[in-house]
Amino acid sequence: MILNKIGNIIKQNKSFAVVSHIIPDGDAIGSTLGLYNFLSEIGKDVDVFNPDKLPSKFNFLPGFFDVKDTLVKRHYDCIFVLDCSDKDRLGHLVELLNMADVVINIDHHISNDLFADINYVDTNAGAVGEIIYNLIRINGFEISYNTAMCLYTSIVTDTGGFKYSNTTSMTLNIAGDLINTGIDFPEINRILFDTLTAQQVKLLSRVTSTLELYNNNSIAMLHVTKDMLEECGANENDASEMVNYARDIDTVEVGVFIKEVEKGKFRVSLRSKNKIDVRIIAEKFNGGGHIRAAGCTVYGDFDEVKNKVLNEIINHWK
Amino acid sequence: MILNKIGNIIKQNKSFAVVSHIIPDGDAIGSTLGLYNFLSEIGKDVDVFNPDKLPSKFNFLPGFFDVKDTLVKRHYDCIFVLDCSDKDRLGHLVELLNMADVVINIDHHISNDLFADINYVDTNAGAVGEIIYNLIRINGFEISYNTAMCLYTSIVTDTGGFKYSNTTSMTLNIAGDLINTGIDFPEINRILFDTLTAQQVKLLSRVTSTLELYNNNSIAMLHVTKDMLEECGANENDASEMVNYARDIDTVEVGVFIKEVEKGKFRVSLRSKNKIDVRIIAEKFNGGGHIRAAGCTVYGDFDEVKNKVLNEIINHWK
Repeated sequence: MILNKIGNIIKQNKSFAVVSHIIPDGDAIGSTLGLYNFLSEIGKDVDVFNPDKLPSKFNFLPGFFDVKDTLVKRHYDCIFVLDCSDKDRLGHLVELLNMADVVINIDHHISNDLFADINYVDTNAGAVGEIIYNLIRINGFEISYNTAMCLYTSIVTDTGGFKYSNTTSMTLNIAGDLINTGIDFPEINRILFDTLTAQQVKLLSRVTSTLELYNNNSIAMLHVTKDMLEECGANENDASEMVNYARDIDTVEVGVFIKEVEKGKFRVSLRSKNKIDVRIIAEKFNGGGHIRAAGCTVYGDFDEVKNKVLNEIINHWK
Repeated sequence: MILNKIGNIIKQNKSFAVVSHIIPDGDAIGSTLGLYNFLSEIGKDVDVFNPDKLPSKFNFLPGFFDVKDTLVKRHYDCIFVLDCSDKDRLGHLVELLNMADVVINIDHHISNDLFADINYVDTNAGAVGEIIYNLIRINGFEISYNTAMCLYTSIVTDTGGFKYSNTTSMTLNIAGDLINTGIDFPEINRILFDTLTAQQVKLLSRVTSTLELYNNNSIAMLHVTKDMLEECGANENDASEMVNYARDIDTVEVGVFIKEVEKGKFRVSLRSKNKIDVRIIAEKFNGGGHIRAAGCTVYGDFDEVKNKVLNEIINHWK
């Protein structure tokens, strides 16, 4: 089986690189650092890379400060590419693929184009961290405390705290084994899910004060302007999840969040619960996404944009 | 072993009552409804009780509308009391204990005073739902879809979505087995953790607008007045978790939430992260609680109350 073949490559070789995708998320960071810690602990010569700067939120993870974003020309016996559906996801680090004897691609995206010498794509895995766990265990190795911190982070972020439908009994069993190493998972969860800046709290107050309900309270709208961001000392990313406060209202089917990008240009995020396909609405404005989460850019002054989007949702409802 | 003994009592008897504690939480409701569904499905004559009206949030659970809050005099072969450390927790339903041949007490609180004929207290269980799962499985029965919905709810609420330190590998393994019944756990999580009313969103906006930071940004204060509640059409319970927005700020060690109870009387909630024992501060005002979560009632006008609490925290810090 492929994980045993990969295990043999690990056992028989000395120098490794581990890399994941641009704009790295918790799974990209947790799975690469998990594999990096494991390989280091069993005495391998390992470099770990990411094309982008990692979000500082993850700086509690062992190995965080070892991650490099630039290449020095050298040779590796083997390179692991994690959580990347294709090589373009490596950004400027794509050159790494020419620096090793063997390239191993480990992923869980169905869209993976199998670009490497050895490809292991398990679409049932909630996170690549689950696959790294299996790779280590199946080949007879132990999971250390440090590796467990990283793999737990990978899994808990990509499954939304075990809430998303990609969570399986395997996910939960693996998480159980990882917490048995003694990691402080309540603190990890606090850092990952329950940490705000004072600016974010101020922005939350301003954004939630804009709440408007339409269509018999089934559509909720929130918005943020550039002035509001500035007043709160916040940046655009601080508003990124606030559409949830619209969608989460009990009577609401569609939550809308309108963000001013520049004068006359607005980014619109759409979320739905059970019925409305918001992708179709986003596509009317040349946007896209999924059934329950989509987005588009709409031009005009704020009231115009709001009414255009609102009318499109109500028309689609009929 | 006791769970087998209890299993034999189930197998050999016909009529059962299941009850849990006043002001029921997710574990009380989920574990009683889990056991109720299981006993009904295997053909027993079962009544399910709670001394209080259940929060409507849980009305998606099978059996929710069967829960009674009043007694009709009759006889049961056996009564199960779940998640109750003592019989006072049964409120006006304590009389049930005299209506059966056998009273079985199943709990996970270390403070349980073993009031019943058969007592099974497992302080390692994250939720009583875990114990009910084991009771069913150990005695050779299957877990149905309906029972799984209830037990999953019990476990996921009492472990804070598997984030609290009472989560064990056993908790996660059981949750994995429960989701294998095909329950819609993403929807259950949405209902339990990601549902707000429009009034709560409005109140959140008002409360977070009161943010004040002290002691080099290590103390955050939020407050709510009766007027604010009224303006938002909200009630006291709508503000119950908002202290978290103070504690969760990255620079903060102590989060404080001050709620006006009546003119000149304020309820103060205190939360800390790693260092400060907030119980000691609460005790200065004749309150109490735990190291990381405590509360007290303080008298005076708002500014007085705020300054008294603030001074106490800063004094304790030194």
